Amino acid sequence: MNNGLERIRLTSLHAKVMSAEQAVQLIQDGMVVGMSGFGGAGEAKTVPLALADYAQTHPLKITLATGASLGNKIDQKLGEAQALSRRYPYQADPVLRKMINNGEVMYVDQHLSSTADDMRHHNLPRPNIAIIAAIAITEDGQIIPTASVGNSANFAEFADQVIVEIDCTINPVLEGAHDIYVAPSRPHRGPIPLTQSHDRIGTIGIHINPEKIAAIVMNDIPDSSFKMDEADEETLAIAQHLIGFFEQEVALGRLPDNLGPLQSGVGSIANAVFAGFEHSNFKDLEMYSEVLQDCTFKLIDAGKMKFASGCSMTLSEQGNAHVMKNFDRYKDKIILRPQDVSNNPELIRRLGTISINTALEFDIYSNVNSTHVMGTRMMNGIGGSGDFTRHAHLAIFVSKSIAKNGAISSVVPMVSHVDHNEHDIDILVTEQGLADLRGLAPRERARKIIDHCAHPSYKEALNDYFERACVRGGQTPHILEEALSWHAQFEETGQMKAS
Amino acid sequence: MNNGLERIRLTSLHAKVMSAEQAVQLIQDGMVVGMSGFGGAGEAKTVPLALADYAQTHPLKITLATGASLGNKIDQKLGEAQALSRRYPYQADPVLRKMINNGEVMYVDQHLSSTADDMRHHNLPRPNIAIIAAIAITEDGQIIPTASVGNSANFAEFADQVIVEIDCTINPVLEGAHDIYVAPSRPHRGPIPLTQSHDRIGTIGIHINPEKIAAIVMNDIPDSSFKMDEADEETLAIAQHLIGFFEQEVALGRLPDNLGPLQSGVGSIANAVFAGFEHSNFKDLEMYSEVLQDCTFKLIDAGKMKFASGCSMTLSEQGNAHVMKNFDRYKDKIILRPQDVSNNPELIRRLGTISINTALEFDIYSNVNSTHVMGTRMMNGIGGSGDFTRHAHLAIFVSKSIAKNGAISSVVPMVSHVDHNEHDIDILVTEQGLADLRGLAPRERARKIIDHCAHPSYKEALNDYFERACVRGGQTPHILEEALSWHAQFEETGQMKAS
Repeated sequence: MNNGLERIRLTSLHAKVMSAEQAVQLIQDGMVVGMSGFGGAGEAKTVPLALADYAQTHPLKITLATGASLGNKIDQKLGEAQALSRRYPYQADPVLRKMINNGEVMYVDQHLSSTADDMRHHNLPRPNIAIIAAIAITEDGQIIPTASVGNSANFAEFADQVIVEIDCTINPVLEGAHDIYVAPSRPHRGPIPLTQSHDRIGTIGIHINPEKIAAIVMNDIPDSSFKMDEADEETLAIAQHLIGFFEQEVALGRLPDNLGPLQSGVGSIANAVFAGFEHSNFKDLEMYSEVLQDCTFKLIDAGKMKFASGCSMTLSEQGNAHVMKNFDRYKDKIILRPQDVSNNPELIRRLGTISINTALEFDIYSNVNSTHVMGTRMMNGIGGSGDFTRHAHLAIFVSKSIAKNGAISSVVPMVSHVDHNEHDIDILVTEQGLADLRGLAPRERARKIIDHCAHPSYKEALNDYFERACVRGGQTPHILEEALSWHAQFEETGQMKAS
Repeated sequence: MNNGLERIRLTSLHAKVMSAEQAVQLIQDGMVVGMSGFGGAGEAKTVPLALADYAQTHPLKITLATGASLGNKIDQKLGEAQALSRRYPYQADPVLRKMINNGEVMYVDQHLSSTADDMRHHNLPRPNIAIIAAIAITEDGQIIPTASVGNSANFAEFADQVIVEIDCTINPVLEGAHDIYVAPSRPHRGPIPLTQSHDRIGTIGIHINPEKIAAIVMNDIPDSSFKMDEADEETLAIAQHLIGFFEQEVALGRLPDNLGPLQSGVGSIANAVFAGFEHSNFKDLEMYSEVLQDCTFKLIDAGKMKFASGCSMTLSEQGNAHVMKNFDRYKDKIILRPQDVSNNPELIRRLGTISINTALEFDIYSNVNSTHVMGTRMMNGIGGSGDFTRHAHLAIFVSKSIAKNGAISSVVPMVSHVDHNEHDIDILVTEQGLADLRGLAPRERARKIIDHCAHPSYKEALNDYFERACVRGGQTPHILEEALSWHAQFEETGQMKAS
């Protein structure tokens, strides 16, 4: 393991190198632990996995805060070891999800821009210990993050002690790609001095007092790679509707030629949209987003995208190999930032980001459910979708119009859980079409959403509900005893439609 | 009427003075009209009322955009004249409300910080004409707003033509109290340069090309005065819970001694809270809010409040007389700003505002309904509550635990409409107690909200629902076929409780 020592360039820290098993001893029952990791990239691995092992025989429970989701099944293994009492702000692990839905782990589903600020100002406890993956520690003690920044800089600042995991699997070319800006505390803080997606406002690494570094552990487990579903007929249709809409908005002078900064959630639909850009006439595209995926780099390769800002790179195995091999080509075209910069309301509104996120379901009045299957069971979490949607220049949600071979309509009379409400949504898109809702009242939205977005097999039932609700009246007509009956029926019969 | 001419200090504009009846001729069927007015203060009166008269005999329909609610029954009269096809971003008129709920007027209920930015960037049409109430027009052509700024500066900038209504009823001492900052357009805009509640970042009046002023009309109708309900036992109890909480947070070092900037919605509960401050040990209080009410000035008089920033002054008749008579005392202690500054996400988050708003109802998982009675009928609108709640340092909602003598519980299994969701709420308060929800998962929140906030007569039913829902499981346990049954039953029987 010692062949990573050259990455610890502040040589006085060499004395702090220890095994994961030794480092784990620093973690006590009841602690708040802040870990790096966002979008399944850039997490610490050796220490958390050693902690999961240790907890099998030495029961302990921690509160685990991260950037977002972790790779390498760390959430699963900590969950199975009964080591998690509380988890925030996001997760995407099937095993942990089940524990959360059983009420075994208290899951606090948060806007990803909020966690650090909440810790900073004492709305959440600060971490006792932070475990941060790093490419290297510089001569002046800066911790260089790996494939994600997430909340690492803030956790390292707030924590009493820091464990650094030197990730020897990460290509050192990535050093310099990060821009670490940690917002000051109230009451004396000024604006975040970023006015363009490509602005650098911080340092290349995380500055903390090196004395807080309690342990350094070498890691040789690589980040997980991300497997992206191939585009299908529906996702391609969604992409085409969106690109057609963007073209029209540019023609009308309502969007700049390059559309302005783009944000996209992780997933196959977003990937299809970005693939659509590859074959469009748009150029000089830029991203101000969370996660940079394979499609970001493909657009750069195709000469379509001039810059991409995010807080994480979540790549396929092939994509990662390609990006690392050719990193010189990307170095001045990407920046990785802390998530309370990438997702900051101040900046998203200033820049005028177009946000494209995936809905689980939306209703005829444009309320969106991003998180809860049938209103109760957590899927993953709201992630950054709220940060972007509320402040975007154009807030767009996409979804296939049906799921489970038509047993579920993604367009419903009333969503079973509201993550984004009617006040915030501009555009909804399914493979059926695009509904431009700007400036419309709820009754007008209903007509447009049913006409443009609903699947033909559900249109009649939606129109029937809407028309009967209108007889009762109201700004947002509903038949309360029926509003959630589609979901209730699905729970009972596995099918939303009346038989 | 000519005795107001001295207020038009750019004398070349005297030629544009005309009667309201003449000015109304500028308004055509189908136009978007942007009017001043926020919180029933600072609206233009003579021209809109003349328009309502005119429309009785000359049918026309306009889209009416304002700052927020209008006084002097202008919404009612325009509504009765069938002159409104579309209305945003807020209203609070009982007659217009009825028309909205009947689907006769398309009402677009918006975050009050968003309207101007949406017009600026072509998500909403820009006004064809703006009607702006003014104390005066300065020598250099600046239009000085009256008791509110609202969206006036933006409307005047965006509109093709501007009608200025010189409000001779407003004491000219108010000149100098405004700070007009109009955000630049994307893509080249920087931060809003405000870092303290008392910062001045603009000019005392609205700068437009005087050639856009198509008419100047003299007005002698005063602003409506606001009648505030007296504090009662419940609102006083809510105030005490909150003040006790604030004292505890300061003692724990989690809030500064003066709490930081405060925002409060309009209403009797907020008024009671502010009255509570008068008898507390807090000092050097400051507001970064929307509407400055009588209670703001009482706190200044009592030496408790050092500064108050808002976009409107909504005062009682007595309060208005007092403030105007003693305005010298307040002049350096208040600022009136455009609502996209007072309510701006960037600034609310930077400053760390504590927001206190009134809920219609909230549910056991801390979703809040601010707008829709029984999920369908619009009350007023979301107003600024979303702007503040999402970005506040502490987002607080208050409500009495029951309404209509107990026929309605304000704490329900599932809210019938979601304006603010679980991701955004920190604290809920009723006269029963205060629930501090920071860092809690939904199941934990449910216990706390039922224990601390629900009325005793509904606790058993809420616990019963929650426990049965937990048997079904999920991050946010619900029984979908029952979740809205309390509301459905109220609609049927006038009573939420099972008989």
